[in-house]
Amino acid sequence: MVPVTGTGAGATERPRVMDLAAMDVARRAAELRCAFEPAGIDGLLVTNLTNIRYLTGFTGSAGLLLVSGDGMTLITDGRYGQQASSQLAAAGVDAAVEVASSQQAVVVAAVTSAGIGRLGLEAASVSWSAQRTYAGTWFPSIELVPTADLVEHVREIKDEGEIQRIEAAAEIADTALAQVRSLLAESPTETEFGLELDTAMRRLGADDVSFETIVASGPNGALPHHRPGNRTVAEGDLVVLDFGALVDGYHSDMTRTIVVGEPSAVQRRMYDVVLESQAAGVAAVAAGVDAADVDRACRSVIAAAGWEEAFLHGTGHGVGLDIHEAPRVGKASADRLSDRCVVTVEPGVYLPEHGGVRIEDTVVVTSDGCRPVTRTHKLAAV
Amino acid sequence: MVPVTGTGAGATERPRVMDLAAMDVARRAAELRCAFEPAGIDGLLVTNLTNIRYLTGFTGSAGLLLVSGDGMTLITDGRYGQQASSQLAAAGVDAAVEVASSQQAVVVAAVTSAGIGRLGLEAASVSWSAQRTYAGTWFPSIELVPTADLVEHVREIKDEGEIQRIEAAAEIADTALAQVRSLLAESPTETEFGLELDTAMRRLGADDVSFETIVASGPNGALPHHRPGNRTVAEGDLVVLDFGALVDGYHSDMTRTIVVGEPSAVQRRMYDVVLESQAAGVAAVAAGVDAADVDRACRSVIAAAGWEEAFLHGTGHGVGLDIHEAPRVGKASADRLSDRCVVTVEPGVYLPEHGGVRIEDTVVVTSDGCRPVTRTHKLAAV
Repeated sequence: MVPVTGTGAGATERPRVMDLAAMDVARRAAELRCAFEPAGIDGLLVTNLTNIRYLTGFTGSAGLLLVSGDGMTLITDGRYGQQASSQLAAAGVDAAVEVASSQQAVVVAAVTSAGIGRLGLEAASVSWSAQRTYAGTWFPSIELVPTADLVEHVREIKDEGEIQRIEAAAEIADTALAQVRSLLAESPTETEFGLELDTAMRRLGADDVSFETIVASGPNGALPHHRPGNRTVAEGDLVVLDFGALVDGYHSDMTRTIVVGEPSAVQRRMYDVVLESQAAGVAAVAAGVDAADVDRACRSVIAAAGWEEAFLHGTGHGVGLDIHEAPRVGKASADRLSDRCVVTVEPGVYLPEHGGVRIEDTVVVTSDGCRPVTRTHKLAAV
Repeated sequence: MVPVTGTGAGATERPRVMDLAAMDVARRAAELRCAFEPAGIDGLLVTNLTNIRYLTGFTGSAGLLLVSGDGMTLITDGRYGQQASSQLAAAGVDAAVEVASSQQAVVVAAVTSAGIGRLGLEAASVSWSAQRTYAGTWFPSIELVPTADLVEHVREIKDEGEIQRIEAAAEIADTALAQVRSLLAESPTETEFGLELDTAMRRLGADDVSFETIVASGPNGALPHHRPGNRTVAEGDLVVLDFGALVDGYHSDMTRTIVVGEPSAVQRRMYDVVLESQAAGVAAVAAGVDAADVDRACRSVIAAAGWEEAFLHGTGHGVGLDIHEAPRVGKASADRLSDRCVVTVEPGVYLPEHGGVRIEDTVVVTSDGCRPVTRTHKLAAV
């Protein structure tokens, strides 16, 4: 088969990260340290790689980061030594970089020389196995304290550079869908359409897709997390498209549902109900609002239509360096929305006989409401 | 920009999973149970999603699996209920499926009704936070036992269906490289070439890429895990390509290094040394061999050339449902190779002034040697 061409023409269209506002990476450790005293720790051993990236700019797949009261040490292995040094320098982060094939001696030395007596471990990220090794072998005389969401909490509030990256990713996704949307009328398989959409996003400059694109047609649409398969999109299908782009580590997330041909009366009603539900959710978003209230706003519209049981999941989630991050927007969420949070609002109705409808925007929370970063129109027609 | 076309012509070339040998999924839990008595447990709460997929065929992103002495219960949430039931049925797996928004009551009931007194937890996968919740709230009167690699050990030996999936993925990667290789002479950026390669793999039927494709040209080649960037491939570059395809959950993994134009004397020597090292490693592979001996075979060739310090990583790793799995092929590995293991052999030399060379094959271990599943020739020229 002839390989994809276009190494020339596409190049000028790629947005360049260097044109986006810089992120203030160096500030983040200082903010994190404000949480040390309330958490009862003198330092934090960061094991979550996304948190390490957030605090330092380092993107390698292996590393540990010690954040003490006044310094940071990044420990990685030989594959990443040179990369770590240049990424930290580029981010303006002042931290020691240690390269070691065996981490124990280096980490223990760093903890000891920082005079840490109570060391926080990210309890949701560190494995039980690692914690046992730390407690039994590495730090027998230091108190290990389980911490929750210390870095994640700092990550909730995005700076201008972060928001611009999410917006750039969302714009790529919008443009890509506009480019390939009409192909849905040409009977592609789900897999084929997904590939077109993914390739369009990467051609437009996405570093990668944000997550595995969902193309769920006809009865498959009733599975909220269906993976694209060999089913051919046909007349009368609702097609759920849930996808996003990745730009400099930041994700976008959008769902649109498209009807191929004429919808049935039930499909039309499903669409209208979900559209109204999603608008009600977005209207409820503002700084200071309980996330559970946004979920309630969406859910009550669907419940009034008699489909409460068919809304199989929570309303949304934070988006940033992770596709799912804090805050959670669901019935049982205790989170409150803050200014400059970025969250999704994505209610859905799933009926095995009729398919699925989900509509999702990602929005930036503001003091008096929110502004969407995903901008594709919400017309159901191809 | 014009969207990618080809939703018609490409379709017939996709290999179909249904044409590959079936995998015997139902056998796996029985094999796992043989490890219960040596590990001192009556049941295992499987939290690693890849292990859950291996044991049941379920591919969702949320779930817990209880394997007791004579049954299995999969607990997932509303997004995945229908999918779980149909995937388990398709795999011929006999297990109860429970859908619950809050897992605690369901899991505790399942553990209690199975009469489990000593419950294994996968210590490398379960978080410290989850272990604390299990110990403090869910199972205060049950002994929780940390286990290591119980499912991973069963996963090391592949059945015919698994090997065929890895071979299908490797064949896609071979074909894709052959399709796009010549573009390297046309001065693409790393990102552009990576996109061509990835798109070719997906057009050929890959469900996805196996991992983020590495295209590391010129000085970037000296970073073993460089991510493709905006650097333009130029005359005199060594270009390291490390990539693979994903077929039905199974990964392939191959690295080739290509010289654009004429190599310098040092580059030529780097290439020859790594080629010889890689061949020595492959020649050392056979069932019953210590993985560390394969590493030694590779490393001694590079050391003899005076570049021991420039071989910055281990020699290889197992490949299957994870891109990195047991056994480990490295200096400090205590693993032994078994018949029907699948491992990589991938030595490299990295010199900041000259670039990098890495050459990697994935091989199936046999009783008297191994057979490669990655088949692209090892000529350095474009």
